[in-house]
Amino acid sequence: MKRIAILGSTGSIGLNALDVARHLPDRCRVVGLATRSKDSLLGDQIAEFRPTRAAVADDAAFERLRKSLNGSPTVLHRGSQGLVDVSTAEDADVVLNAVTGSVGLEPGLAALRAGKTLALANKESLVMAGPLLLEAARAGHASILPIDSEPSAIFQAMASGRNEEVRRVILTASGGPFRTTPRDHLPGVTPEEALKHPTWTMGSKITIDSATLMNKALEIIEARWLFGLAPDRIEVVVHPQSIVHSLVEFRDGSVIAQLGVPDMRVPIQYALTYPDRLEGRAARLNLLDVRSLTFEAVDLEAFPAIQLGYRAASMGGTMGAVLNAANEVAVELFLARRIPFPRIATLVRETMDRHAIVATPTLEEIRAADAWARAEARGAAESRPA
Amino acid sequence: MKRIAILGSTGSIGLNALDVARHLPDRCRVVGLATRSKDSLLGDQIAEFRPTRAAVADDAAFERLRKSLNGSPTVLHRGSQGLVDVSTAEDADVVLNAVTGSVGLEPGLAALRAGKTLALANKESLVMAGPLLLEAARAGHASILPIDSEPSAIFQAMASGRNEEVRRVILTASGGPFRTTPRDHLPGVTPEEALKHPTWTMGSKITIDSATLMNKALEIIEARWLFGLAPDRIEVVVHPQSIVHSLVEFRDGSVIAQLGVPDMRVPIQYALTYPDRLEGRAARLNLLDVRSLTFEAVDLEAFPAIQLGYRAASMGGTMGAVLNAANEVAVELFLARRIPFPRIATLVRETMDRHAIVATPTLEEIRAADAWARAEARGAAESRPA
Repeated sequence: MKRIAILGSTGSIGLNALDVARHLPDRCRVVGLATRSKDSLLGDQIAEFRPTRAAVADDAAFERLRKSLNGSPTVLHRGSQGLVDVSTAEDADVVLNAVTGSVGLEPGLAALRAGKTLALANKESLVMAGPLLLEAARAGHASILPIDSEPSAIFQAMASGRNEEVRRVILTASGGPFRTTPRDHLPGVTPEEALKHPTWTMGSKITIDSATLMNKALEIIEARWLFGLAPDRIEVVVHPQSIVHSLVEFRDGSVIAQLGVPDMRVPIQYALTYPDRLEGRAARLNLLDVRSLTFEAVDLEAFPAIQLGYRAASMGGTMGAVLNAANEVAVELFLARRIPFPRIATLVRETMDRHAIVATPTLEEIRAADAWARAEARGAAESRPA
Repeated sequence: MKRIAILGSTGSIGLNALDVARHLPDRCRVVGLATRSKDSLLGDQIAEFRPTRAAVADDAAFERLRKSLNGSPTVLHRGSQGLVDVSTAEDADVVLNAVTGSVGLEPGLAALRAGKTLALANKESLVMAGPLLLEAARAGHASILPIDSEPSAIFQAMASGRNEEVRRVILTASGGPFRTTPRDHLPGVTPEEALKHPTWTMGSKITIDSATLMNKALEIIEARWLFGLAPDRIEVVVHPQSIVHSLVEFRDGSVIAQLGVPDMRVPIQYALTYPDRLEGRAARLNLLDVRSLTFEAVDLEAFPAIQLGYRAASMGGTMGAVLNAANEVAVELFLARRIPFPRIATLVRETMDRHAIVATPTLEEIRAADAWARAEARGAAESRPA
């Protein structure tokens, strides 16, 4: 029996994780839940799963839930410290970190230091502070298991060899909704168009990241830390069907791939039951329905985010945090119709260009770089609106 | 350092195995070689690799080589017993069995009983006598490693889970040279056309087996024994590019595939260096060159061999030996232009129809079923020429 705390339980990954837990009652017990502001949905989840603890980051949502939970045995925590309280609770074995953005870093570090297995969907924390997370895992004798479909695919394929036998990994990218959009139309695309992902249903931040391919940039940096790979061993190919979730080429020439219908429950369940594989409820892959798996090169001019990912992965230090923070600001501004779509990547690049990198930063220096990048990106967007 | 005996060293697999050994001098030493009748080529191989032993099955070829080897330290063995002598030689750790047809059974059994790792390309021996090979492996505390690209792919993919977690395996088939030939043209195809395989260069027996898809029937039976899978857990899909060598679906819905350019050196090297993966010389897979991987259903009416494979795998006992023997005769008759192409499968089916199965046969009963099926198939072909 694994006792699981889910940070971001009301988001897309969180709901899928609860669906996995619901159908594996003998293997998973939910002992912690956390949301940013969806108090009503969290209330329903608390009623169903009866966790020991729950947290609400937003103050008003916390107060609403506290009143409605009157008499519940679940202890309710507040604010960003609440996330840390839930992720370090004594009765949790596995912390599934599915919050969005940089707020996921501290509870992840705390969980690892406390010796919890970190099932990680919040790739931003690895992008910002990969070496610190790895150090926390060492200190806590804990491990990090990826939840995203691509790094999970790499993790699963890696089982067929040893890390030092890997020649390269190939991350697949759906290409997003604008894969075939003429470049000169990109300045005119709307948030509504960008939010229509062709193969996955996800939250708005990650869906925009998929449209810019910044999501793949984040995965390049994530893979760099998670699998200890030099950036030149990480490749990206566009695979519009999202069936091959990623591939590993070993030095003998053998390539191992993980495939499946796009269903987040598969990698989530794998992380929650690892190293076992239990009966799952995802639809089965039928190659005769799929008929054709296609691969094409990334259009690096239309999607310059990829090169930014390689650059941040190569430079290390605070550059990942800067890329991530500038991107979070840029996505927010795009969704608010304050900047056009191609400005997301140029805003990130310009912020990176102006950053004085710290090579081996502390958590405080990462926080400072994050704050600097946010202010810088916001300022640049306002002073030079596109 | 692994000391390797190669049975069938002058055939396609054998030559590839020697190429692997040639480029891994620190890991592989060739201590045994064997051919059916290619004495001149074997003489060259003996001069290069200086094995302890060599064998020639054909008497005239043996005599020729014996004379030319005058003074060589390599001990020369004769006949089918010579294969056994080489496969059980004390200084061999791994026996790579790449002879063609039923002649491969006895040296394989002997190698396992002597505790050698059996690197198996001769799938006919598993098809004829899977349970006896498994029993010999148990008795000799030895293991069987597949060399063919499809079972090697399954073996490599299996590393990502446990045997009892497998939901099904999916064998891929190139479809052979007649994949798109109209069914009513099949009676008129020539041996020359059948020998033109679209993706692999191999010996003539296995190339014809690929054209009839009997090769896939043999692999169904092979997978049944090698991986302990019920036949309804084994599927076949046509994949004309021969890039995805096979796939394993685990019960959690995750599918692991092994891919690569068609190059036998990859699975051969994997078996010879297992569990290590060393730098290989095969061309690298470039998905951007491949562009599209396609999958289609097998045309079971045009290629009835597949159903015969399932039938033999389900019935077990002597039925695998009968399918294999009748097929060896039928392929020989087709290559001699004595029967038309579609008659290969019907001859095998009719022989299977008339066979009185022995459920748990001894080696002698398997030999008897093999001899019976050969005579029966020959008789049927002559009494009712198509």
